[in-house]
Amino acid sequence: MSAASQARKRLDRDRLEIVAFERGHFTSYSACGIPYWIGGAVKERDKLVARSPDQHRDAGIDVRMRHEVVGIDLDKREVVAHDLIGGGEVREGFDHLVYATGAVPVTPEWASIPAAGIFGVQTLDDGAAIHDWLDREPTPQRAVVIGGGYIGVEMAEAMVLRGLDVTLLEKSPEPMAKTVDPEVGALVRKAIGEMGIEVVTGAHVEGIGTKDGRVREVLTPGGAVPADIVVLGLGVRPNSALAADAGLPIGVTGGVRTDRRMRVVGVDGVWAAGDCVETRHLLTGDPVHVPLGTHANKQGRVAGINIGGGYATFPGVIGTAVTKVCNLEVARTGLTEKEARRAGYAFVTASVESTSRAGYYPGAAFMTIKLIAERRTGTLLGAQIVGRTEAAKRIDALAVAVWNRMTVEEMTGLDLSYAPPFAPVWDPVLIAARKATDAVHSAM
Amino acid sequence: MSAASQARKRLDRDRLEIVAFERGHFTSYSACGIPYWIGGAVKERDKLVARSPDQHRDAGIDVRMRHEVVGIDLDKREVVAHDLIGGGEVREGFDHLVYATGAVPVTPEWASIPAAGIFGVQTLDDGAAIHDWLDREPTPQRAVVIGGGYIGVEMAEAMVLRGLDVTLLEKSPEPMAKTVDPEVGALVRKAIGEMGIEVVTGAHVEGIGTKDGRVREVLTPGGAVPADIVVLGLGVRPNSALAADAGLPIGVTGGVRTDRRMRVVGVDGVWAAGDCVETRHLLTGDPVHVPLGTHANKQGRVAGINIGGGYATFPGVIGTAVTKVCNLEVARTGLTEKEARRAGYAFVTASVESTSRAGYYPGAAFMTIKLIAERRTGTLLGAQIVGRTEAAKRIDALAVAVWNRMTVEEMTGLDLSYAPPFAPVWDPVLIAARKATDAVHSAM
Repeated sequence: MSAASQARKRLDRDRLEIVAFERGHFTSYSACGIPYWIGGAVKERDKLVARSPDQHRDAGIDVRMRHEVVGIDLDKREVVAHDLIGGGEVREGFDHLVYATGAVPVTPEWASIPAAGIFGVQTLDDGAAIHDWLDREPTPQRAVVIGGGYIGVEMAEAMVLRGLDVTLLEKSPEPMAKTVDPEVGALVRKAIGEMGIEVVTGAHVEGIGTKDGRVREVLTPGGAVPADIVVLGLGVRPNSALAADAGLPIGVTGGVRTDRRMRVVGVDGVWAAGDCVETRHLLTGDPVHVPLGTHANKQGRVAGINIGGGYATFPGVIGTAVTKVCNLEVARTGLTEKEARRAGYAFVTASVESTSRAGYYPGAAFMTIKLIAERRTGTLLGAQIVGRTEAAKRIDALAVAVWNRMTVEEMTGLDLSYAPPFAPVWDPVLIAARKATDAVHSAM
Repeated sequence: MSAASQARKRLDRDRLEIVAFERGHFTSYSACGIPYWIGGAVKERDKLVARSPDQHRDAGIDVRMRHEVVGIDLDKREVVAHDLIGGGEVREGFDHLVYATGAVPVTPEWASIPAAGIFGVQTLDDGAAIHDWLDREPTPQRAVVIGGGYIGVEMAEAMVLRGLDVTLLEKSPEPMAKTVDPEVGALVRKAIGEMGIEVVTGAHVEGIGTKDGRVREVLTPGGAVPADIVVLGLGVRPNSALAADAGLPIGVTGGVRTDRRMRVVGVDGVWAAGDCVETRHLLTGDPVHVPLGTHANKQGRVAGINIGGGYATFPGVIGTAVTKVCNLEVARTGLTEKEARRAGYAFVTASVESTSRAGYYPGAAFMTIKLIAERRTGTLLGAQIVGRTEAAKRIDALAVAVWNRMTVEEMTGLDLSYAPPFAPVWDPVLIAARKATDAVHSAM
């Protein structure tokens, strides 16, 4: 819908007719907000909806809800959709096509069973299904969240807030293993544990046990974990099957390949944006799939501007992410150690502990910042932050530094803001840059 | 003391003897913390002291307290100091001299009168004098703060917190006129006013009326403002008189001139750091005097590393600053409109209002971000932020962008962190970059 809105802004109805097909019940909603709605911090579902179908229609976008597109015919330049309510097939021609199908949850075979109480968390329809289930079922219930990535962790917290007994199963040694390095993951594990969530790591789920068509337990080599509800947080993959069927190019990550204007590579008049596309990591140059609302919105906007006759580009990503886990703020940008190693970098690391405000100022809270810098050049490759308050958003300054390929030594001179209510006289970011500079020198 | 500590780290006592002269009673304290101690947020004076003279002595630095250096003899390579307690004169030779005398408050002739109740706010000794006065005198008292820069505003707030009736006199049309553009200053004025501080702008102070050797009123063309205590917040200038007397080079700003290693220009073995030096604005290339603890600490560290045989540089500043005014956070980086105009830039501006968190997430607070971008190139020249909470530290991402001469258009693609507890899906910084990009395009 970002693409549609941007195109509409630039070209009026006489010049561009816009039709949007949506399989589900909602448009323009914040999928990232689902855990907070389920947990109760956000009171109403509709708060998550930035723009309803009717609002889009008022803006001149012909939204066809509950229509599932099942085919794209590039030769005839038309799409084929099923009307999920009225039934029947709809064909719609196009000059420009925007492929924005998002992602689908990774669902192992053992999770694809016809039993009540198994949920993914991808669409607002998914979220609504969980919300309904929690409202309907008697408490306390036992919830098992499978997957300790940020969606899994956020959902585990939401379930605890709703009064459930929660077990989080993660196959890696620490939660958030794809997001942060293990020692940072250990801090996350501790914070989750303190909230009363049972965290089981190294847990390889083998199946889900059911009874009378309902979930009963999750089976692991360590034993069965009782479960009234199972939430799958095993990550997502690009929803690119339809694109592949139509012959659109699919990259190594499974996402649709586009250029920086979000044009599908080699196919005139076809665009793609959001969690269904593959993008580029600006440090490594590698193709990556990073399903995040902020990228999706930027990409959609870029596609829409270009369709509307403007010029805009989406250059790629550097892996910035942030989340709130219980009372912990966790953020990252650039590469983790594992990612840097995989990309072939030799690097040094430095971790510092400092405070969010001047030590003497009320409310100063501890935080840890870890930097990863290339050996020899000292180029900042990545950063991770863990803290209690006012910590995580500091990742943005580090993200801009990564974006600009700064060295940690140059960063020691950065003119960052200082006043006692906001930082120690050496901001934690600067202290980290100093220590990383020392590490670079020591490794010369 | 930063320089001393860094040099000590690198060279032991056998290789480097370090003597430090201090006129006052304190070492290594946070001058920026004084308003918070006076206002009561910081309970004890000694919380502001990072390292006492004895701690420095334990670290191998021979600190001579209450010694005022009155002369530097570059030919003999010695300094002359007055022992303010024991009396008499001390001469001390040097191989390296670090000139770190800080700044002195701007004190017009009308304020240089022998009357009780007039205070500057530069040293911890100054702060202690105000604190003592407030403890001693009966309340309520009427305080007049002269000067609406950030020190003046912070002191006005501190006085209100101590139960005084406070009037803030500022000669410009809005407070913080040197820090932010007038429309941002107007928001500051509003916040101060809501706290019960009377703000009089366009107020040209003509004198201070006294009675029985005590302050009685502040005289302005608009009438006399009753005052039991007067706090001067008229800014500071480099304390470079001693340097000038010794023949050290003084720049156009009145600060000692150094190179990027903090060596005094043209004088071997003499270094300078802190509020007494002139530095360089990295955008305009102009010499500037920016007295801030964060610069002073960086410069001292750089001098100390170089004296210790290492290599470090202080490249200059870009004008980043932040302050908390009552319940308002105010931050800036780069150039204001006035500064940009003076430097000869043609520019466009863009202001946006957005929220600190996703609009639906509890605690989302409004903030305004203003960007200034060069016409044609779109290079980010400056940014200002005003908000309630979680707003001001966003200036750091913008500071790193200014530092790296990013264009606002490139900034629209920046991979900043997003999650509902920390930002809307478009961070306010990105929204501002988008609007500034539109402004640049419109002005082409």
